Amino acid sequence: MKRLFIHATILTMKDGEKPLTNAALAVENDRITYVGPVPEDRSGYDEVIDMSGHAILPGWVNTHGHAAMSLLRGYGDDLPLKTWLEEKMWPMEARFGPEQVRWGTALTVLEMIKGGTTCFLDMYDHMDQVAEVVVEAGIRARLCRGAIGLCSEEEQVAKWKEAVQFARDWHNQADGRITTMMAPHAPYTCSPDFIRRFVESAAEYQLPIHTHMSETAAEVQQNVDQYGVRPVEHLDKLGVFDLPCLVAHAVHLTDDEIALLAEKDVKVSHNPGSNLKLGSGIAPIAKMLAHGMRPSLGTDGPASNNNVDMLEEIRLAALIHKGANEDPLAVTADVALRMGTIYGAEALFLDREIGTLEPGKKADFITVELRQAHLQPLHDVESHLAYAAVSTDVRDVYVDGRPIMKDRECLTLDEERIIYEANRAFQAIAP
Amino acid sequence: MKRLFIHATILTMKDGEKPLTNAALAVENDRITYVGPVPEDRSGYDEVIDMSGHAILPGWVNTHGHAAMSLLRGYGDDLPLKTWLEEKMWPMEARFGPEQVRWGTALTVLEMIKGGTTCFLDMYDHMDQVAEVVVEAGIRARLCRGAIGLCSEEEQVAKWKEAVQFARDWHNQADGRITTMMAPHAPYTCSPDFIRRFVESAAEYQLPIHTHMSETAAEVQQNVDQYGVRPVEHLDKLGVFDLPCLVAHAVHLTDDEIALLAEKDVKVSHNPGSNLKLGSGIAPIAKMLAHGMRPSLGTDGPASNNNVDMLEEIRLAALIHKGANEDPLAVTADVALRMGTIYGAEALFLDREIGTLEPGKKADFITVELRQAHLQPLHDVESHLAYAAVSTDVRDVYVDGRPIMKDRECLTLDEERIIYEANRAFQAIAP
Repeated sequence: MKRLFIHATILTMKDGEKPLTNAALAVENDRITYVGPVPEDRSGYDEVIDMSGHAILPGWVNTHGHAAMSLLRGYGDDLPLKTWLEEKMWPMEARFGPEQVRWGTALTVLEMIKGGTTCFLDMYDHMDQVAEVVVEAGIRARLCRGAIGLCSEEEQVAKWKEAVQFARDWHNQADGRITTMMAPHAPYTCSPDFIRRFVESAAEYQLPIHTHMSETAAEVQQNVDQYGVRPVEHLDKLGVFDLPCLVAHAVHLTDDEIALLAEKDVKVSHNPGSNLKLGSGIAPIAKMLAHGMRPSLGTDGPASNNNVDMLEEIRLAALIHKGANEDPLAVTADVALRMGTIYGAEALFLDREIGTLEPGKKADFITVELRQAHLQPLHDVESHLAYAAVSTDVRDVYVDGRPIMKDRECLTLDEERIIYEANRAFQAIAP
Repeated sequence: MKRLFIHATILTMKDGEKPLTNAALAVENDRITYVGPVPEDRSGYDEVIDMSGHAILPGWVNTHGHAAMSLLRGYGDDLPLKTWLEEKMWPMEARFGPEQVRWGTALTVLEMIKGGTTCFLDMYDHMDQVAEVVVEAGIRARLCRGAIGLCSEEEQVAKWKEAVQFARDWHNQADGRITTMMAPHAPYTCSPDFIRRFVESAAEYQLPIHTHMSETAAEVQQNVDQYGVRPVEHLDKLGVFDLPCLVAHAVHLTDDEIALLAEKDVKVSHNPGSNLKLGSGIAPIAKMLAHGMRPSLGTDGPASNNNVDMLEEIRLAALIHKGANEDPLAVTADVALRMGTIYGAEALFLDREIGTLEPGKKADFITVELRQAHLQPLHDVESHLAYAAVSTDVRDVYVDGRPIMKDRECLTLDEERIIYEANRAFQAIAP
């Protein structure tokens, strides 16, 4: 299948490259074959699509989340964090079985596709269900069984084995759309020995590591009380940063810690919506950028966000650091968009395949309708995407060159059924 | 014309009132006549509309903006504030004539209607053009000629007279949909004498006052350098707070200033998007709420936001104060929604007519489609609106009981023509 998209505004997201106007993108099967001026010769294509008035750019890459938690969206909001977790989230999550994970994940994946996300990371339980949803949806994903070690040694071993088994079973499945990681949940929920097991397995199977780190001030203090060091030093000593590693949150960091993370090339998933909503704080993104880091963006789970709208995370990243630092240049529009695309691909160690539009890469991209009141006049398409667009401006979504949403209709998932089943799955465990 | 809306989730926005499920709203001409359980007898209505799967709530009230600046949306973003103002905004605004104001305003009003705003404040120049757009659009507005006093005494007098004339000509026009205010631009752009003129005229014609105040740390310092006091004390001494008064921004305030504003019942328009984007800072909204103030929300002009999406301002208000204060209860979902509705009506001194859904008030309301992936399961509609919805979830907009948008089509304005004319109006002044 060969498709040619013409007369588009194309944002390749390559470093330093400005949007191309009246440009063309050619796709053959799952790969991009051409990006540039509209060719004279348009023969040899199965489909030539006029994209006048539209932008084409890489799909969003959501680098941290727990998709199944959509079932708990808005279930006990506006509570102190401890109450919310201990009285609302954990008791309900303890009742989650494969059905809840399947339909909660399907609801979230549907929402992600409708908002233009083409690749996401998921860290949860019952991960076979998540992988099956990814197969069906046609989206791309980096998946990991998140393991909380607050349990008996026997249970810990079982979780670790399950995590390894899942990672080995599903890595490079679904035509390579699924890859995996090893994910000890967090330093405050995993003993050093438990984390070491995951580091060893990650090294053995050549998989990256994903974990939560320094999300709240309280958890940093707890680490100091328990181990005498802050989480960054703690994880560094455990060898976590000697392997390819992605940490989620990284809100409470010292300047020295930022320097260490930069030096070790640790990837960061910045989750502004979740960090704000839970009152965790505002991550030092401007400082990370100054250290040459390329932080990515994640929505976190829909229960702590409360959506998976990556354009909203891009907007928040572009806005809140300017306000918090009283510096209108803290995170510019072009950087915020790259945080949502190529920096995300780098954070998932998939940047050789996705994250920019260039020949040879996978054809994962979205189209955005620009002829709308809130995007006119079209002085600067990067600015309009970062500061003015909404998720529903995304019209089409392609992954591996295959359309999975066209003109806002998801082609791979049944929206009505998923909404019905997700509600049913919640009712089955409702107190 | 009598309309009955049935089987809706209704958010009246009355203090302490939770959403009503499976409820009805009756409207006769421009007024609400009933809110409550679905009546058995539905005869006597010209139209009975089934709103199953939808919410009905008061339209958003946008309490600060400069609509015509949409022509400069994204025109020179990500610059230091001084460069942006002096090299980009002011030279272009100096070229604005009636055509630019007309089509810039029309573009913004179209966007506001499509996002569910039913009432907005506008402070700009060529205000007759703005008023005429309001008449045509069927929206409600509080309008004021914003006067910058950095000019000769003669020009100052001309601006003041023009502001008074506009306010008298248009107050209570368009079936009362248009009301007016007196608006000296800001303490740093208006001399004390110039501000006094506006205070006197406001008293004479019984109109409220609107002004910018304490938006940036630099302007507060400038006030201290120039007048020996900070802007709050300065305006208080000029008698501004002895009349009904709405101040925009109020970012840089001391605790004593907040107490004074609360005591004098000064209304605040919180503009989080603009304040973040321009690097102005984060207003102390949590403290204002603790003092019993009821801050409203504004988008500011589209060149400093860069849209007029009130749901985004509600989202930002609900999120950023939690993050900045590391307190997940700083601004709860129900308060954020009230900031966007009834607190907005109060800020514009229109709360006897709009801002809540109750019998006797004007029928200004919106409908929101709830059966969508990102709003399921429907555990808490207030939470979903504040944290998960997007502006395009708004389906219908009614003002004075008249539908001005139905199923996302604006019935009063010609979208294609406005986009064309707005671009033409910009091109006519482009350098």
